[in-house]
Amino acid sequence: MAPRVLIFGTGSIGAVYAYVLSKALPSSNLVTTCRSNFEAASQDGFTIHSSIWGENQKVRPVVVHTVDEAAAIDPNSHFDYVIICSKALPTVPSTAELIKPAISPKTTIVLIQNGIAIEEPYAKLYPNNSLLSTVVYVPATQTSPGVVLHKEVELLHIGSYPASPNTESATKFAELLKSAGASAQVHEDVQFERWSKLLINASWNPICALSRSRDVQVLRANDDSKEFIREVMLEIAAVANACGYPGINTALIDYQLGRATVRELPGVEPSMLADALAGRRMEVEAIVGNVVRVAKAHDVKTPMLKTIYVLASVLDDSFGR
Amino acid sequence: MAPRVLIFGTGSIGAVYAYVLSKALPSSNLVTTCRSNFEAASQDGFTIHSSIWGENQKVRPVVVHTVDEAAAIDPNSHFDYVIICSKALPTVPSTAELIKPAISPKTTIVLIQNGIAIEEPYAKLYPNNSLLSTVVYVPATQTSPGVVLHKEVELLHIGSYPASPNTESATKFAELLKSAGASAQVHEDVQFERWSKLLINASWNPICALSRSRDVQVLRANDDSKEFIREVMLEIAAVANACGYPGINTALIDYQLGRATVRELPGVEPSMLADALAGRRMEVEAIVGNVVRVAKAHDVKTPMLKTIYVLASVLDDSFGR
Repeated sequence: MAPRVLIFGTGSIGAVYAYVLSKALPSSNLVTTCRSNFEAASQDGFTIHSSIWGENQKVRPVVVHTVDEAAAIDPNSHFDYVIICSKALPTVPSTAELIKPAISPKTTIVLIQNGIAIEEPYAKLYPNNSLLSTVVYVPATQTSPGVVLHKEVELLHIGSYPASPNTESATKFAELLKSAGASAQVHEDVQFERWSKLLINASWNPICALSRSRDVQVLRANDDSKEFIREVMLEIAAVANACGYPGINTALIDYQLGRATVRELPGVEPSMLADALAGRRMEVEAIVGNVVRVAKAHDVKTPMLKTIYVLASVLDDSFGR
Repeated sequence: MAPRVLIFGTGSIGAVYAYVLSKALPSSNLVTTCRSNFEAASQDGFTIHSSIWGENQKVRPVVVHTVDEAAAIDPNSHFDYVIICSKALPTVPSTAELIKPAISPKTTIVLIQNGIAIEEPYAKLYPNNSLLSTVVYVPATQTSPGVVLHKEVELLHIGSYPASPNTESATKFAELLKSAGASAQVHEDVQFERWSKLLINASWNPICALSRSRDVQVLRANDDSKEFIREVMLEIAAVANACGYPGINTALIDYQLGRATVRELPGVEPSMLADALAGRRMEVEAIVGNVVRVAKAHDVKTPMLKTIYVLASVLDDSFGR
């Protein structure tokens, strides 16, 4: 029997995975929770314009407002996967609590979210469920409600949380994605991939948001910018090293930094900059705050990152006033 | 004969000193350069609403657009004082170059500007002129063109640049102010006062601008805010100490920090925050960049201040795009 899937938080990434999974599953097995794009998605489904899959790709999942509604669709059936694609924000109630009505003993929880140390609330609430942590490389933007622009990359790194040599659950989910034509890599410890992506996310994201500038604009505005960003990345690497990931090193930093330095003006707009310019809440705690807290726990000094964290946290607070 | 005075840059501080000096000088001896408020100031002069001097205090100086116009008013007479009250921005041509037409061998140049290490361009261009550096405590805001709101404090610290036991020139200017009923303190080395004010300006100003929040909002938004600002002030103090000012110490920091912690929400709006919210250029180089450069010259580590500097510099650059 084809698995049933709930996607929680269907912005650009959620819409892309709804589309991808519709290649392997009947759309009636795909349920998505939507907020700001609910009207558009329930009327017209989602439209993906992709440089990989082509223009005007359509998917029409079952669209609901809440997890309660999702669970009520078929009370005799369970969700095989609950995939969290919402922003990693510290809400009350938490996302981990919100998904409860959809969690059965057989449900695998998949976190497609940025940041570090974001898995713990799920592991605590659902200690007997399979929990997958992932790192996504899918450059996608929702250009209007239900309409998503997707560019050339599509890859999901998958591992269980906590890390484990038992990759059965991760492999099963990867195979579902692959059967849909998507790309997936299974890891015994996916946290290395998290730290690798965090090198970029915990530096460029808040730096661009605070300076209201795109990455290349940051690099061109001040002679010290490049060295400054490298030093911030070195602090992130020091925390990763203290957590047992020596592979987060200067070679990787110079590679990641190089990606921005070869771009043309104005460069790319990280999600936190887009959020800041729109006055929306940003993933400060998941992406920066948690690194600072992990650093403190390991007694690693991160003065630059701490500065960025407090500034971004207060800026984020200003959007809630 | 009453001295002739040119005020360069007549925003809130310039208007207050035009008003003050009009108590000691005929208004025809007072010339002010104006830009955005030229129309209002040349038609109606300046109006000061002050908790010290009362509501609706008026002054009608001679209002001009440029220093050339100021110099042309009376080619046979020189300016005894050229008082710089403009923002300390790195412009081309520089403010030091712009005032040239008004500088005679007898002219004393007075800098009423924030920041550190801002005197050098004037000292270089006018090595034989008397040069006074000052620190101003005049909380004033231009609420509409030519109209200034001024609150309870009015004090100018004055010293020669470079610092010197010869306080003749500073004393003469202080006496002019005192004869007008204003407050002035003469110092052999006014740079201590600059560092003391910089403790607040180089921390709160860019921190509030970057986080788009007032001082008390910053303190309340994150549990780490207060300790963070204290650490930034400690970095500024370390630079001051390296420059020979051991009096910039933790006692002074705790006093300065305490001023914000006792305020009610939302707190005060530093000038750089007002500039940022209006998309205007900010005094980043004079107030933060110069501290980072002085720190580097003295081999003092200032990672937090450097982070704040680069972020504020790029934010400022965004206002010029």
